[in-house]
Formats: sequence, structure tokens, C-alpha cells
Amino acid sequence: MSAASLLPSKLEGFVRPEFEDTCRRRFFYGLAFDPYGGTAGLYDLGPTMCAMKSNMLQFWRQHFVLEESMCEVDTTCLTPEEVFKASGHVTRFNDVMVRDTVTGECIRADKFLEEWSETQMANSDVTAVQRDEFLHLLHDAAGMNPTQIKAVMDKHAIKSPKGNPFSDPFPFNLMFSTHIGPEGDRVGYMRPELAQGIILNFKRLMDSGNAQRMPFAGACIGTAFRNEIAPRAALIRVREFTLAEIEHFVNPNNKAHEKFDRVRDVEIWAWPRDRQANNEEPMRMKVGEAVDKKIIDNQTLGYFMARVAMFLESIGVRFYRFRQHQTTEMAHYAQDCWDAELLTSYGWIECVGIADRSAYDLTQHSNASKKDLCAREEYDAPRVERQLQRNLTKGLIGKTFGKKAGEVMEFLNTAPAEACEAIREAHAKGEAAAVTLPSGEAVSITDKMVTFAEKDVKVTGYSYTPSVIEPSFGVGRILYCLLEQSYWVRRDEASGKNDKRAVFSFTPLLAPQKVALLPLMVKPELMTTIAELRAELVRRGISVRVDDSGVTIGKKYARVDELGIPFAVTCDFEDDGAVTLRERDTASQVRVPKEEVTDVIVELCNAHSPRTWESVVAKYPAQGAAPPEERTVFERVMDDTYGL
Amino acid sequence: MSAASLLPSKLEGFVRPEFEDTCRRRFFYGLAFDPYGGTAGLYDLGPTMCAMKSNMLQFWRQHFVLEESMCEVDTTCLTPEEVFKASGHVTRFNDVMVRDTVTGECIRADKFLEEWSETQMANSDVTAVQRDEFLHLLHDAAGMNPTQIKAVMDKHAIKSPKGNPFSDPFPFNLMFSTHIGPEGDRVGYMRPELAQGIILNFKRLMDSGNAQRMPFAGACIGTAFRNEIAPRAALIRVREFTLAEIEHFVNPNNKAHEKFDRVRDVEIWAWPRDRQANNEEPMRMKVGEAVDKKIIDNQTLGYFMARVAMFLESIGVRFYRFRQHQTTEMAHYAQDCWDAELLTSYGWIECVGIADRSAYDLTQHSNASKKDLCAREEYDAPRVERQLQRNLTKGLIGKTFGKKAGEVMEFLNTAPAEACEAIREAHAKGEAAAVTLPSGEAVSITDKMVTFAEKDVKVTGYSYTPSVIEPSFGVGRILYCLLEQSYWVRRDEASGKNDKRAVFSFTPLLAPQKVALLPLMVKPELMTTIAELRAELVRRGISVRVDDSGVTIGKKYARVDELGIPFAVTCDFEDDGAVTLRERDTASQVRVPKEEVTDVIVELCNAHSPRTWESVVAKYPAQGAAPPEERTVFERVMDDTYGL
Repeated sequence: MSAASLLPSKLEGFVRPEFEDTCRRRFFYGLAFDPYGGTAGLYDLGPTMCAMKSNMLQFWRQHFVLEESMCEVDTTCLTPEEVFKASGHVTRFNDVMVRDTVTGECIRADKFLEEWSETQMANSDVTAVQRDEFLHLLHDAAGMNPTQIKAVMDKHAIKSPKGNPFSDPFPFNLMFSTHIGPEGDRVGYMRPELAQGIILNFKRLMDSGNAQRMPFAGACIGTAFRNEIAPRAALIRVREFTLAEIEHFVNPNNKAHEKFDRVRDVEIWAWPRDRQANNEEPMRMKVGEAVDKKIIDNQTLGYFMARVAMFLESIGVRFYRFRQHQTTEMAHYAQDCWDAELLTSYGWIECVGIADRSAYDLTQHSNASKKDLCAREEYDAPRVERQLQRNLTKGLIGKTFGKKAGEVMEFLNTAPAEACEAIREAHAKGEAAAVTLPSGEAVSITDKMVTFAEKDVKVTGYSYTPSVIEPSFGVGRILYCLLEQSYWVRRDEASGKNDKRAVFSFTPLLAPQKVALLPLMVKPELMTTIAELRAELVRRGISVRVDDSGVTIGKKYARVDELGIPFAVTCDFEDDGAVTLRERDTASQVRVPKEEVTDVIVELCNAHSPRTWESVVAKYPAQGAAPPEERTVFERVMDDTYGL
Repeated sequence: MSAASLLPSKLEGFVRPEFEDTCRRRFFYGLAFDPYGGTAGLYDLGPTMCAMKSNMLQFWRQHFVLEESMCEVDTTCLTPEEVFKASGHVTRFNDVMVRDTVTGECIRADKFLEEWSETQMANSDVTAVQRDEFLHLLHDAAGMNPTQIKAVMDKHAIKSPKGNPFSDPFPFNLMFSTHIGPEGDRVGYMRPELAQGIILNFKRLMDSGNAQRMPFAGACIGTAFRNEIAPRAALIRVREFTLAEIEHFVNPNNKAHEKFDRVRDVEIWAWPRDRQANNEEPMRMKVGEAVDKKIIDNQTLGYFMARVAMFLESIGVRFYRFRQHQTTEMAHYAQDCWDAELLTSYGWIECVGIADRSAYDLTQHSNASKKDLCAREEYDAPRVERQLQRNLTKGLIGKTFGKKAGEVMEFLNTAPAEACEAIREAHAKGEAAAVTLPSGEAVSITDKMVTFAEKDVKVTGYSYTPSVIEPSFGVGRILYCLLEQSYWVRRDEASGKNDKRAVFSFTPLLAPQKVALLPLMVKPELMTTIAELRAELVRRGISVRVDDSGVTIGKKYARVDELGIPFAVTCDFEDDGAVTLRERDTASQVRVPKEEVTDVIVELCNAHSPRTWESVVAKYPAQGAAPPEERTVFERVMDDTYGL
């Protein structure tokens, strides 16, 4: 992608019904609880996607957790209410909903307004002014609050799809709630993200896992739940999904990353917020340059964006871009946020969010739980700092304030410098200082109760609440986008029937099985060879699929292509001690001696091995005529778009 | 374990507080939401256990899914109510609960009665008759219904722990419930097991994944939830946990397993139900013999028990046994059931259940969903069978019964042979037949409406509802038991301080990291070597831990042992081009050339490599004095118990 000058805006030649038919027929995924007619927004993954998911997560662990020495944790989905009260989810994790006042149907207001705007714009008698208004509505609907939505709906007298009046728009919380424990009085939620579970382990990880050294990252792979009002678009908007999240804890005063120089030259497609505002296209840029120019807020954020790009390319993603959030679009506490978006037939889909969440979550949880959730930065050498000393006369305070004495002392020990200064000024005038305690009570503090002094103190470091930089991966979304981006159709013109045969061009890293073992015919002498090859490959950790059904070898290859298996070994009756090894995308075949073929396959599947299919073709004799050159739909898109 | 004559009944020398202190200090696991004081029954896994879990599940996939060509699926936790209504969970997935009528505290009745019985038995003035009664109560409490529990509580006037009267016992459903969708009227449950999700994919897997061949297995790894009344015993009884389940679909008429001969000679500790009833100990037996003698119900069940045994030994489980369920203890539909139990300081813990669930679930779901969930067995050659033909006069039935005609025809087409025979007999007497429809309505059927005839028909096969054989693994429980069974204390007598140092003897397969990289001192020249070794090992998929803190090498080794890392490489300033390689359990050390050490480590960590630590010691020069011979607590238990 590096030489390209423009990103495609859609997947050319992608026929969704054919794609979906293949996915259904081979059970890549399907609605859960199928015999009962399925449940909206709940999907099961079949064996192919399940294996791909496992491969992807294993690589994720290798690429992020192992490579970066992260602390992976496994946290619970069930979460007590106080956690999501502190994080703000109980009050703010809402979508705006409207109800059809006649049928009772619930509809997500922003999505409805978006679709309504598009319909209006497609109307031939719409004026230029109106079109402009609808275009703005289309862009703004997602960020509107209930009052704004009501204003729009009233202005245009918008009715429900059934033609009935809508209720007033109201916020609908997307968390599934339940009760924890037998008493039934303890509300819990199924987590809608993994972040809080990792963040609440910050202290334990720092103390036990990481020998108290900052910065470091926690990581977690797990299930999250959102009670979507309108699930849609297959695996893209669902009610239960797998996330893989990283929470990188860092000193807010220093967000440099020690390995940043290694990724300076990584090139990405970036769509900064001002280019979006100016209707300009995403542009190709180096991560180092983007951080230097402050387009990306800091090195740590940039480092993770580069690592995400490398991850996506390794698993075979062809079209992706980084879109920066608008300042109005970000959470109020966020410092900067970029989404890695992947191209699908539904448009560009947010699959990885890389956000600087600042110190918000740790601060909130520290306040709510009254626990110290700080890290400490030690100076290289002790420094002398002028500090405010507070000398309390505890006896007098106790005698004067009785039961309130604790609160008064707490206040005097922790009041900010300005408050202390005010007390000193009052005392300097010979007056008692009038002070309002956090409880709201006013008390009078005399100079007998407290004195202040500045002293030079030797300080070895300071405490701070870490900022959190969070790359969060939507695992199911990435997999779905990969399916679309890997799908193409081979037209078998040789057969004269103009057969269309689906092919999924998965990388060996992600492919559900690495190799198919195919007997030319189901005869005992061939099945023995197949069984031996299978045992040897499984022993070496290579997943295989044996097709010993009675169909023709051509039909077996079609099945293999349809499952995205990159290599196939066919055993036949030739007495040359060799088998046929076939590559999926080119459909080219070579003869390889039986005793070498597992080594060749292991090397082909190992991303670190120099072995390529070209080198195999160069080394071993070809089998059959050279197949017609084929390109994937995406290769064709790229050719057409970029003229490569 | 094969030569042993007796299983130990407890973990000798296991000091739980010390063990728990190590687990807490190194954050192996901990209560979730720690800053908020934790939530009972919800645990987070820290980096060490998280890595072990990932290693275990990866091996599970290799050992079961890959090796046996199973169809793995990824199914949802959220489940609509109708599924668990059909499976019986809504009515029957209960524990019996009692409530303290004063404090409102909820208590699980069976566990309370068990503890109460034990307390009574420990009472010195208890008679032999009473002791016998309490012993029976201890054994029976788990299976008692509310009425039986009430009788016991009344008889002994049992009070709550606070001395208050109990409420009447009542059933408490253990599923967490929630609402799916914005309307709030659709009840859903968080699944308490994975089985239903796999079983509901039976048809899709058979049609798409497995080319319609029986028998085959579905598999799933995922989270399950149970709202335990009394969570306890660390990770053993929790409210959210990971399961790995297999549902093997098989023709109930033929539960032979094609690979059974491969496991005939696998020896297990088995505790059949009649040995339990006779107060006899578990015994050592070969799986083949146990199936031949019908101690294990069928080959498929026996095959999976043997494969489970092989799995447990591969991951390092030292003490386990298979306990057969009592017939009263099994689910009413179960054919046979064996639990693999692992020994811990809490006693023998059920960790894997291997049950023959018969055709119950598929039958229930087929009835509830009105979908065909059958498989088909084709005969080798067509057979001639005598079949009952039903010839209906649809016009007359329609005219006679009007709106009810459909129900009448459905009845006549599907009525069992005896019912048809009764109709024929009536007709033979020249009478109309009185028939009761499924709706309860009585109708009269004349011989003008239907006639019957027997005909010879060529039949190519038959349909059947498959039986399901289910091995179900409690992932967290297995991990916890492994922690206990791998833990021992090294007494460092040499230091003169009689230091106690915790060691976890995990197998390389499961160890959280395979190797620790330790610079003797934190100097740039050593750190360069460490970085090179690290990069090379990570590239080859070997997880490493670098300890570049300033503590002594002895302290670093202690940390490594405490995390169960099997190998450590120490870099020093010697100019022999070698590094020190140390093995955890023996603490023995050798000097290995730098360029060979990664190969040696990779081989040591590969279960299929012939490389052993003994062969490394034989090949490379020793470093330092030979360490004192050490044995784990468990090795000592085994010596003491078995006199090995």
C-alpha cells in the first residue's frame, strides 16, 4: 500500500449476497440460537472463524503482550454498580431512543435521523439549501442530545416508520443489568468495555507484577456486552463481542516512548481532524513526522498507532486508515483519540480505538473508593523544595470541636495552599479565620489551633495519578472486515460452465487451517499416507483439514479455497515418492518428495522463515499446466485505483 | 503415578496461609474490583495465571480440537429464556436456600447442613447412633429437596449462625437474569454452562462443517455464570468462570469409538459407584478393561476419560481420580457420568465432568423449536422393511372436520402403530373409531376417511436423535488445583537464615514464562546480550521475563522460582562466550555457549523434543557446586505414600 496515492472509498466488485451465502453455507458465522429463529445482535462463530479468532488472539499476545512485556490480566464481565457509577457509565453510557407511540417499537434516534436525512437528500425536488441542511443533520445526528433531536423531529414533523407519532426522545442506558448475590439487592452490570477491569488492577500490577516501574501496560482479552437498540450489519454492531484492550499507564508529564525511534518511519493513512473539517482526503504520513508536528498528541499514542498498523498488516488487512476524533466527538476527559477504520461493503468501520484517556478513570476510582491509586516518580537526585508545613495543636482542636475534630484536622492537613494562605492572612490580622469544611459547615480557626511555615525540604520524588493510553481492539469487527477484504471469486472459464468459486485469501498466520490433505481417491494406500502426514503436521502444531469424501479433486480444491486454506497436499498413485503441493491464490502446483513436504509447509506457515511460495515453485518441478493468472478483487481495485 | 498402590487423601505439608500469601504477593489471582474491597465470587487472574490459562487453552485446542478434528464454535453468554426453558434450567437449575428471618441473610441449605453435621460429629458427647445419623446427613444433604431439608431442620431445631429462626427452605435459581433489547420485555440469562450453545449448532455443524458425517464433536471455550449463594474456596466456587466443553454427537445405537484401541491400556484411578457405596478406595484400572466390564458405560465415554487423563498429566497434574456419579446424583436423563477430581487442600475437587447426556437436550430443543435436529444413518445396502401405509381421504376429512381437519390429518399421519391398530380393529368391526386428538378433543374416524396397509418398502437408512457425550472442563478450577499441586517450599539452609522460598514446579508447557533473563549486574554490556537473547527467544515464540532490577542474583532466582519459570539465563562478565543456564527444580546450573543457548531452551520447552535437563547437564560443564537435592512436597508425599 506504500506507493499508493489514494485510498479506495468502497470495495469495488464486492457482491454481498454471494459473500453472505458462502459465509452461511460454510458456517463462518450465524445468528445464535438458530433453531429458535436466532436472536438479534447475538452471533455464533463457526469452526472457520473460531480458528481464525484463536490465531488472531494468539498473534495479538505475541505482538503486544510478549513483545512489549505487558501485564495481561483476566477480569470479570460481572461488575458491581459502584464501579460504573464512578466511571460515569451509569449516567452517561446512553443512546438516545424514541418510541413509536402506537406500536411501542423502540428506535435509535440518531441512526433513524441519519437514514431519514439520506432519504430526503435522495428526493429529486429537494432544494440546494434543504440538501445542505440534511447533510449537516446526517453528520451531526450522532452527537445530538434528546432536546436537539426533539427540535429536529418537531421542525420536520418526523413520524415513525409506521407513520405514527414518536415519543419524546429519551436516553437509554446500553448496559445489561442484573443482580449479584442471593439477596437480590446488589445491582451489577455486564461490562460494556474492558478498561475498568484493567485499570482497577493498576496498583496490584505495579506492586506485584512489574516491580513498581513506570510506564507499563496492562492488557486484557475478554467479552463485553452492549444492549444495542438496533443491532445490524452482521458482526459489526452486536450485543456481545470480544475485545482486546491495552491500558498503558504513563506519567502525564512525560508521554515520550523509549522505543519511539523504532517506529518513526512507519507510514500510515491518517485523517487528522482539520482535514476532515476541510473535506480533504486522508493522507499518507510517517508517524514520527505526525508526532513532531503535534498532529498526533504524543509519542506513546504515536507508538501504539504504528504498532497497530503493523499488527493489521501482519494479519492481512488490506485497507485501513486512522481517523482522528473531532474534539466534540471525544469523551470529555480524552486528550486525543484515533480510530483505525477498516474498509467494508458497509463503508469504513471503526475497529481499533487508540485513545489518551488522561488520568480520568484512576482519578474517579480513587475518589470513589478512597484508595491511593498513584504512582511515584523518583528524581535522579534529591531536590530541595520549599514546602508548606502545617503545625496543628491537636488537643485544642479536639477540645474545641469534639466529634467534628477529625474533619477539621483532615481539612487543615490537606487544604490547598491558597486556603492556608487565607487562614494565615486572617491570623496575621489577629483574627480567627472563617473556614467552610467539605461537609458545608462553617468553623472558626484561631492561630492557637494551627500555624504555617515554609521550610526547605529534601524531596526524592513526587506522586502522580498516571494517564492511560488505551488501544482497544474490536476482535469480531476486525475478523468480519478481514473476511470481506479477503473474499474474491474465481471464474472457472476452463470448465466451460463459467463456474463462480469463492476464495478467501487469508494469510497463513490467520488461516483457519494451514493445509488440506486430500487423497485423490479414498483408497487404503492413500489414506495411510494422509494419516501419517496428518499426525506429523499436528505434532508440529500445524492445523490440517482432511477431505476424504468421494468428490473430484477439483471439487475438493474448491472447498479448500472457500475455507481460505492456503495450501493443499494431494496424495495420488504415482510411484515417484512425491505428493502434489498446491497454493490457493495462484492455484499453481508442484511435486514435492513426501519426506520434505511437512518441512516445506512448516516453513511456508512460519512468518519468520525466508521460505516463500515463489521459492518453492523455483525449487520443485511443476505439476500440470500453469494456471491462468488470477488477481483478487482487491488486487484489481488496487490496480484500478492506483494504476500499479 | 502408574506404580502406586494408593492415592493420598490429602496434601501433606501444605501450609495454605503461606501459599496464599505468595499468590497474593505475586498477584496470581485476587478478588475483582480490589480498590472497592472486592466482590465475593468474582476473581481476576494476574499475569502469571493469565499466561498459564492461555497456555493451557492452547494445549487443550491442540490435544482435543486439532487432534480429534472437532468443530470449535464461539457462542454467546447471553441466552434468551426459551432456550433454558426447553433445557430445564429455568425450573431446575436451583440450590436450596434458607433465610435468617431476623437479619435477612441468605444461606445455602445443603452446605450449611453439611457444616452443621460436621460440628455435631466433632462434639465429644455425641452417641454412636447420633454420629451415624449426622454422617448420613453429611453425605445426603447435597441431594435433598426443600421438604426434606425442612424436616431435618425442624427435627434438630436448627438455628441460623446468628441464633435466629430460619425461613422455610426454598429453591433459588442460580442463573443471572437480564433483559435483551430496548423494549425490556425479553428475559435473557447469562449461560451457566456452554452445552446448549454447542448443541443448538448441531445441525449447522453437521451440514456445513463436517460434511454430514457422524459421529463428530463440537467444542467451545467460554465464560459461564452462576449466582452462587455462598462463593468460597478461592477459585473453586465462583460466580464467573471459564469452561472448555466438548459435545460429541453419536448414534445412541452405537457408542463404539474408532480410536478406542489406542487408549485401551491407559491406566486411571477409578472410583466406581459400587466401590463408593461399599466404602472401598479408588482403584487402578485400565480403561479398556473398565469398558469391557461395563464399569464405564461405553467406548466413547471411556475414550474421552483416557484422553482427559492424558491431558491432565501433560499439563502437570499430579493427583487426580475419576469418581463415578451415584445414580441418584446424576441428572435424570444422564446415562453415566464420571468426574475427574483433583486433590487440593480443600479435598478432592471436581474439575472435569464426563457425562453421557443421552439424547435429552436435542430432543427437548427439537420439541420446543419444532425443528428437525436429527442425524441419519445410511445402511450399507438398502433393506426391505415392512411399513405401515396410511391412505387418507383428504376431501372427506376436510368436509367433516372443517377447521380441525389439519389436526386430524396430522394425527392420522403420525399416530404410533398401536393407535393405528386400534382404528383398524374398530373399522374391522364395522364401527367408526373413537380417537382423542393431542388437543384433547374426541373425534370419530370412519373407514371412509383412512385405511391402513402394510407394505414392503426399500429403506436406505434411518433418522435418529444423537446422544451427546460431554467432557466439560472447569478451567479456573484446574488452574487453581495445579497451583496447589505445584507449590513447595525450598529451605535455604546454606544462608544460615533458614529462608523459606516458595517454588512452583510448573511444566514448561504451562509455565507463565519459559525462561528468565538475568543480568548479573545492570551494566550496558550485559543488557545488550540480554536484549539480543530476548529478541531471538520472543521471535521463536518463547515467552521471557527480564529482571534487570538491582537485587542480587540469589534474590532474582528466588523471584523466578516463585513465578514457576523453569529456566533462567544469567549473563555475566566472563569472557568465555558462554552464559549460565539454570533449572528451577534442581537449581543446578551449566555453562552454555551464547549462540547455542536459545536452541537448547527451545528444545527444552518443546514437549516433542528428546532434549531433557539431564541431557543438558551431561553435555555442558557444570557451574558452581552441585545444589542440595531437593524434592517437592508432592514428591515427598509420593515417597511417603508409595515408598517409591
